[in-house]
Amino acid sequence: MNHEPGRCLALSGGIGGAKLVLGLSQALGPDRLTVIANTGDDFRHLGLYVCPDIDTLIYTVAGLSNSSLGWGREDETWSCMDTCRQLGLDTWFRLGDRDLALHLHRTALLGQGVALSEVTRDLCARFGLPIAIVPMSDDPVTTTLTTDRGVLPFQEYFVRQRCAPVAAAIRYEGIERARPASAFESLLGDPALAAIVICPSNPLLSVQPILSLAGIRERLCNAASPVIVVSPIVAGRALKGPTAKLMRELGLDCDALAIARLYADIADGIVIDTADADQGAAIEALGVRVLATSVVMHSLADKVRLAREALAFARTLAGTRLSSG
Amino acid sequence: MNHEPGRCLALSGGIGGAKLVLGLSQALGPDRLTVIANTGDDFRHLGLYVCPDIDTLIYTVAGLSNSSLGWGREDETWSCMDTCRQLGLDTWFRLGDRDLALHLHRTALLGQGVALSEVTRDLCARFGLPIAIVPMSDDPVTTTLTTDRGVLPFQEYFVRQRCAPVAAAIRYEGIERARPASAFESLLGDPALAAIVICPSNPLLSVQPILSLAGIRERLCNAASPVIVVSPIVAGRALKGPTAKLMRELGLDCDALAIARLYADIADGIVIDTADADQGAAIEALGVRVLATSVVMHSLADKVRLAREALAFARTLAGTRLSSG
Repeated sequence: MNHEPGRCLALSGGIGGAKLVLGLSQALGPDRLTVIANTGDDFRHLGLYVCPDIDTLIYTVAGLSNSSLGWGREDETWSCMDTCRQLGLDTWFRLGDRDLALHLHRTALLGQGVALSEVTRDLCARFGLPIAIVPMSDDPVTTTLTTDRGVLPFQEYFVRQRCAPVAAAIRYEGIERARPASAFESLLGDPALAAIVICPSNPLLSVQPILSLAGIRERLCNAASPVIVVSPIVAGRALKGPTAKLMRELGLDCDALAIARLYADIADGIVIDTADADQGAAIEALGVRVLATSVVMHSLADKVRLAREALAFARTLAGTRLSSG
Repeated sequence: MNHEPGRCLALSGGIGGAKLVLGLSQALGPDRLTVIANTGDDFRHLGLYVCPDIDTLIYTVAGLSNSSLGWGREDETWSCMDTCRQLGLDTWFRLGDRDLALHLHRTALLGQGVALSEVTRDLCARFGLPIAIVPMSDDPVTTTLTTDRGVLPFQEYFVRQRCAPVAAAIRYEGIERARPASAFESLLGDPALAAIVICPSNPLLSVQPILSLAGIRERLCNAASPVIVVSPIVAGRALKGPTAKLMRELGLDCDALAIARLYADIADGIVIDTADADQGAAIEALGVRVLATSVVMHSLADKVRLAREALAFARTLAGTRLSSG
C-alpha cells in the first residue's frame, strides 16, 4: 500500500471517530498519526478509571474491537460482571473480563501519580499501536448534561439512560482549569503537519470539549496546517449515537450546514456526504470549502478511502490557508 | 442437625483455619460464630486491595472455594489474567475473573474511606454468610520476612517465591500503631462466649499477627471463656503450607509440644492429633489440657466432627478457667 505523505493530527471521540482514525492510520502508515482523544466521558466505575473514547480508539486501531456489540473487546467474557450482578453490585456499565486488564493497569498507574498521557502512551505501546493516542488533557474534565431528568454525568445519560432524557444544556466541568496535553500543544505548532482532521464524532459531546480547552480554538484558527472536518451527519441523520437528537434538543438544525457552522471559524474544508451536496453552496458561503463524497464507513476499505480523500482534500487547501493566514 | 450451644470466637488465617471455621459454622448454626481474620497478608496487586485470608474464609464458608486449585473460587475463568500476560503485566498472583468482583468492590469502598471491617461486613452480607468475619484491625499491618534473599513482603515470599527462601525473622510492620477491630475487642469482653478457638493456622504467619495487636494477648489471658488451640501440626508435619519449614528455620521444634509452648500463656486446652498423643504429658506439664483426636480434615463431616469435639472440650474446661482465673 502506498502511504499518504506527511504527518497528521486528528481530533476524535469514540466509535464514529475511531473508524476514520483506523482509516487514517492505514493510509498514513506507522508513526505518522497522532489522535487527540476526548476525555470528557471519562469516569470512575467500580473504582476503576475508565476512558471510553481512548479505549475505543485503542481497541479499534489494534483490531480488537467487538464488531457484534459495537463497543468493547472481541472474544470477551463476562464472569466478573456476572459475579457483580450476583453480589448486587452495579452492572449498568458492562466491563468485560479482558477489558478489565486495561482498566486495572490504568487505574493503578494513575494511583501512583502517573499522568494520563503517560499512561496512555504506555497502553499504546503494550497494544503495539502504529499511532499515538493523546488524551486532550491530563486534568479531569467531566461532561454533564442538564436534562428533563436532572443534571446527569455523561455515562449516566448515555449508557444507563440510553440518551432518553431531553437535554437542555451541556457542561464540561473542570474545563477552565484543564490544560491541553503538552503533546497536543507542541503538535499544533508543528508547521510540517499535513493536516488537522476533525473526525466524524459528536460535535457537542466529543469535539467541543477538546475545542473548549484554553487556547485550542485560537491555535486551530492560526494553525499553519489545513483543518478538515468530516461530517458525522448524513441526510439529517447521525452516523452513530445521539448526535441528531441532541443537536435538535439544543436548538440546532441537524444537517451538514449546521455542522459546518459549528466549525466555520477553524475549518478550511469539510467533507460531507453526496446526499448533502445541495448544501454545498451555503457551506462555501461560510468560507469553508466542501468535498462531497460518501462519508459512510462500513468496511475497512471505506475507512481508508475516506481517509485518503480527506488527506488529498487537505493538500488542495494547504495553499489557500497560507495565503489567507 | 443439633447445634452446639453458645456463641464462639475463632482466630484464623486462610486455608487451614478456614476448614475448621466451616466446621464450627455448621456445628454452631447461623449467627453464632465470629471469626477474627489475620490481615497481615493483605496487599495491593494490580491496584486492588487483596485480603487473602478474609477471601479464603468467605469463599470457604459460602461453599464457593476452588477445591482443585486449593485457593480462589470455583467455576473460575481467567480472561483478565490472560490479557494481563499478553500486555506484559504482573501475573504471578493470579486473580480470577469472578474473584475480581470482590476485589473491585472492596477497593472501591476502601477508596471512599469505608473501614475494612465495614467493607468485610458488607461482603459477608452479599455472600449470604451465616457467620461474621472481622478483620483483626482496620489499620494496615504488613507481614514481612527477613530471608537469605532479602526482606520479602509475605505474598512475595509465599506465592512468588513459593516459600523457598530461608527465613531468619518475621516482622508485622505497623503492628504497634494498629488497633484491634472494635468488634474484636467487644467480643473479648463478652462473658457469654462459650469458647475462643485458635484455628489450625500457621502460628507465626497467621495467628501471631492477631496476638501481637496491643492488649490482645493479655485480654485472651484474662478472658472469661476457655481458649482452645487446634494444632496445625500432625506428627511433625504441617497440615497445610510452610508451617513446618518456617518453624524449623526460626529455631523452633516442629511438633505439637512446640505449638503448645507458643500458646501456653493463653490456652486452656489444645486439641492435638492422636499421632502426637505421646507428647500429651509434656504439654499438660505446661498447664495446658490436652484432647487427642484426629485433627486432619478432609470431608465436611471431618470438619464438623472436629469442631464439635473442640467445643465439647471447651465446655469441660470452662469451670477450670473460672476457678484458676
